[in-house]
Amino acid sequence: MGAELRIIPVTGIGEITPGSDLGVIIYTALRNQGLTLVDGDILVVTQKIVSKAEGRLISLEEVTPSAFARTIAHETGKDPRLVEVILRETRRLVRMDRGVLICETHHGFICANAGVDESNLADQHQVSLLPRDPDHSAHLLREQLVHLASADESQPLPEAERPQRLAIVITDTWGRPWRNGQVNMAIGVAGLAPIRDYRGEPDAYGRELRVSAIAVADELAAAAELVMGKTAGIPVALIRGYSYRPAVDGVKPLLRDAASDLFR
Amino acid sequence: MGAELRIIPVTGIGEITPGSDLGVIIYTALRNQGLTLVDGDILVVTQKIVSKAEGRLISLEEVTPSAFARTIAHETGKDPRLVEVILRETRRLVRMDRGVLICETHHGFICANAGVDESNLADQHQVSLLPRDPDHSAHLLREQLVHLASADESQPLPEAERPQRLAIVITDTWGRPWRNGQVNMAIGVAGLAPIRDYRGEPDAYGRELRVSAIAVADELAAAAELVMGKTAGIPVALIRGYSYRPAVDGVKPLLRDAASDLFR
Repeated sequence: MGAELRIIPVTGIGEITPGSDLGVIIYTALRNQGLTLVDGDILVVTQKIVSKAEGRLISLEEVTPSAFARTIAHETGKDPRLVEVILRETRRLVRMDRGVLICETHHGFICANAGVDESNLADQHQVSLLPRDPDHSAHLLREQLVHLASADESQPLPEAERPQRLAIVITDTWGRPWRNGQVNMAIGVAGLAPIRDYRGEPDAYGRELRVSAIAVADELAAAAELVMGKTAGIPVALIRGYSYRPAVDGVKPLLRDAASDLFR
Repeated sequence: MGAELRIIPVTGIGEITPGSDLGVIIYTALRNQGLTLVDGDILVVTQKIVSKAEGRLISLEEVTPSAFARTIAHETGKDPRLVEVILRETRRLVRMDRGVLICETHHGFICANAGVDESNLADQHQVSLLPRDPDHSAHLLREQLVHLASADESQPLPEAERPQRLAIVITDTWGRPWRNGQVNMAIGVAGLAPIRDYRGEPDAYGRELRVSAIAVADELAAAAELVMGKTAGIPVALIRGYSYRPAVDGVKPLLRDAASDLFR
């Protein structure tokens, strides 16, 4: 604490298509912007470009809705083929009311439409699905970027500054109960502990903090969204100056188990 | 979009007590850090110091619990006097289960324990309540800081750089359904529109963005928390470089009305 945080939009990412080498594209964009990855950097990457690179796209023209999808489509006013895709991504319907489908995805995320999204796609018939395993996507991206930065002979770094601690947070933008507006949240994490746990530590007056586990991966996601915008085509942000605990937990610690959840 | 965002912890705020002049204290701390408020700056301030300055503290030794408070205390394992204070701040109990009280406050916020908090208080018997009208608190703080910055002869600013556009976001740290960990959220806003509405705008491919209203005040709150920490005694952060729409709406646009809420 105490140090300034910088949130830097990464520009010039360009169009991502199935098979795009996201690691190389992001690294090149950083370098073209005059940025070099240093130890402790965090890259926040929107789900949409990860899904595109991984080919997690489906054309509604190839989808045949089931009877149940047709029923829900009728109830919610959605395209039956879109509902079919949503149901395929869903392991439990949490709520279905007022034209809204709140789904628990196969990953365990709870969000509208199981993360199936029609925006920011070149093909008007396509929709995007969440990455199949966003933690794994984040892990691979992290490995690749550490390698690229370490092997970059145009920018040799002293050993201590090489990005051994590099973190990746893959995000999506979701609504919430009780509050209007969507916020960016973490759906895949590599290289950092997604929760900073203060329980058991004393507060400023020596009284034990009883309930304070901060979802820092979600706060990093939210912070990054502020430089991304939905229409500006900036799918990556670099966060520099945040001190975090390296970890291999992925996003799982952020997912509340059903037994402690009063709202599902 | 495109510009770098800086999140700067404001240090040296010191102890806040009922009657403390928060505007002067924050302005002095900024100046001691070599910072001058400029047009477009956003100050994020934790609820706790606003509540302290406003005397929104109550000693549990002066509280007599009602019969209902005693019943709930028995069910939840909480101090009956604490439950009494929580109930006084509550207009509706949203959930009461597994030792947790999720309350709708008189302001319309939905959060655990109606925002009543025991941490970071000098007097071990005291608890803090949320400010009575956090939007008004933010408004007053904004007016005062604009005045202090404009009148500061030690740091005369060209007209164009004077902080006519200055925003205040007062925050508290709350848990959420479905996800573990707490995040910082906006509870009082002055000088900026808390929601950035992209509905009707085209996405990067000219397709209309159908559902995208971003809760930027909550994202700013979350971003600021990253430099605050719970134990470090940094209750204020300066966010510089975020382009926002000035507004006088306060926090209300963030509060989902019951009719559109599937989870209360």
